[in-house]
Amino acid sequence: MGELVFIGLGLWDERDMTLRALEEARACQVLFAEFYTSRLMGTTPEGISRSLGRKVSILGREQVEDGRLILAAAGTSRTGFLVPGDPMMATTHVDLRLRAEGAGIPTKVIHGTSIFSAAPGLLGLQIYKFGRTTTIPRTTPNFRPSSPYAALAANKAGGLHSLVLLDIGEDGALGAREALDYLEAMEGQEGKGVLTPSTILAVLGRVGSPNPTVVVGTLGELREADLGGPLQCIILPGKLHFAEEEALRHWRTP
Amino acid sequence: MGELVFIGLGLWDERDMTLRALEEARACQVLFAEFYTSRLMGTTPEGISRSLGRKVSILGREQVEDGRLILAAAGTSRTGFLVPGDPMMATTHVDLRLRAEGAGIPTKVIHGTSIFSAAPGLLGLQIYKFGRTTTIPRTTPNFRPSSPYAALAANKAGGLHSLVLLDIGEDGALGAREALDYLEAMEGQEGKGVLTPSTILAVLGRVGSPNPTVVVGTLGELREADLGGPLQCIILPGKLHFAEEEALRHWRTP
Repeated sequence: MGELVFIGLGLWDERDMTLRALEEARACQVLFAEFYTSRLMGTTPEGISRSLGRKVSILGREQVEDGRLILAAAGTSRTGFLVPGDPMMATTHVDLRLRAEGAGIPTKVIHGTSIFSAAPGLLGLQIYKFGRTTTIPRTTPNFRPSSPYAALAANKAGGLHSLVLLDIGEDGALGAREALDYLEAMEGQEGKGVLTPSTILAVLGRVGSPNPTVVVGTLGELREADLGGPLQCIILPGKLHFAEEEALRHWRTP
Repeated sequence: MGELVFIGLGLWDERDMTLRALEEARACQVLFAEFYTSRLMGTTPEGISRSLGRKVSILGREQVEDGRLILAAAGTSRTGFLVPGDPMMATTHVDLRLRAEGAGIPTKVIHGTSIFSAAPGLLGLQIYKFGRTTTIPRTTPNFRPSSPYAALAANKAGGLHSLVLLDIGEDGALGAREALDYLEAMEGQEGKGVLTPSTILAVLGRVGSPNPTVVVGTLGELREADLGGPLQCIILPGKLHFAEEEALRHWRTP
């Protein structure tokens, strides 16, 4: 009798698995993993495999979207699907779960730590006051969508904070500097005042690691600062509560 | 040399700690915990203490807000502060962190699994399309704030989903039925169409446990259904993508 268990790997390395995740993964007969929706920068697929003491087959985007390999295994064996972060953040994974259930295969979700709560908490802004999250893609002269900027403008109009994720493409994750370039260019084009010269932003890096980075400042200040490397995310604060102002001031102190 | 480590306990029981959390907690000389911002329904403070093999002092709201006990310990000893979920979701905890840093005490955050990503993922709605989160308090004839309803109305107007948390008071957590009563009463009073007879809602319970409950239906259907007990949360869907419609349909099937 098969089963499909979606197992969150959390944020940084193999130590971000919960005890429940570890136990569930070890109880599986077959283990798959994907690292295209996010990455664990603090380890490698081999590191994960080693810490589980088990073989893990890494699947690419097409194999996950196709799903047949996973579903075939899950039809007869207890099958684990390891996913960075909390495991049901991608539509494909939800789709896979529904297909399994539709085929009579029981499913389970083992949650993992996630950037969606970690980033607001690390910076010290209230998670209750975040509007919708947006992702900045890698742009080209022919592809520069305005929807991420529009989402930030809508949040700001409502006084809400914004979590901005940076696209994880096949050519590597988008860096914070390129994301800031995008935002500045869109501000020039759309002019909704999302990013003025005095707007304060935060760039967070290595979230979930033993030494995360938090840099807070204006666009000009961020351009001068060491922002670290991917994976990074950006937080654009909305209306600030007194305690939130203090948190930003803390991080802005050089 | 002291240190203050904020350690997330995750969602359900002692098995929701990450390996990193376990390691960090065991490396502390002094351990505090609080269970008033949230609760681990699958275990007890004693269960946590036992699984760490360490004494844990449970603090009440006043002691955490006052903070002196924690800061005094952290000034001289490696001190861990155990918090359900992801540990920096409450203003008090952020404030405590800033006070520690201000007093020259290094701090660290060890993330935990959180309802903010777990609930959307479990239901199968896209976390990117959630607007601000709101909490429904325990109301009385003299205290029935309209702000939670207003937050839902704003999200719905923007086509966004809403995560609705239920207050965890000293008299026990608010139940989903009382929360639905509140929403119905507010709809009658404010009339913004947040909750019509055909509106589909989801009630989630025991999120993070081995047997979470997800019930999807109209207000009328939910009144007839077994919604389980606290802790619960509610999700009010906004505009639905095709895959999200499928997820809701899946859960609604009796």
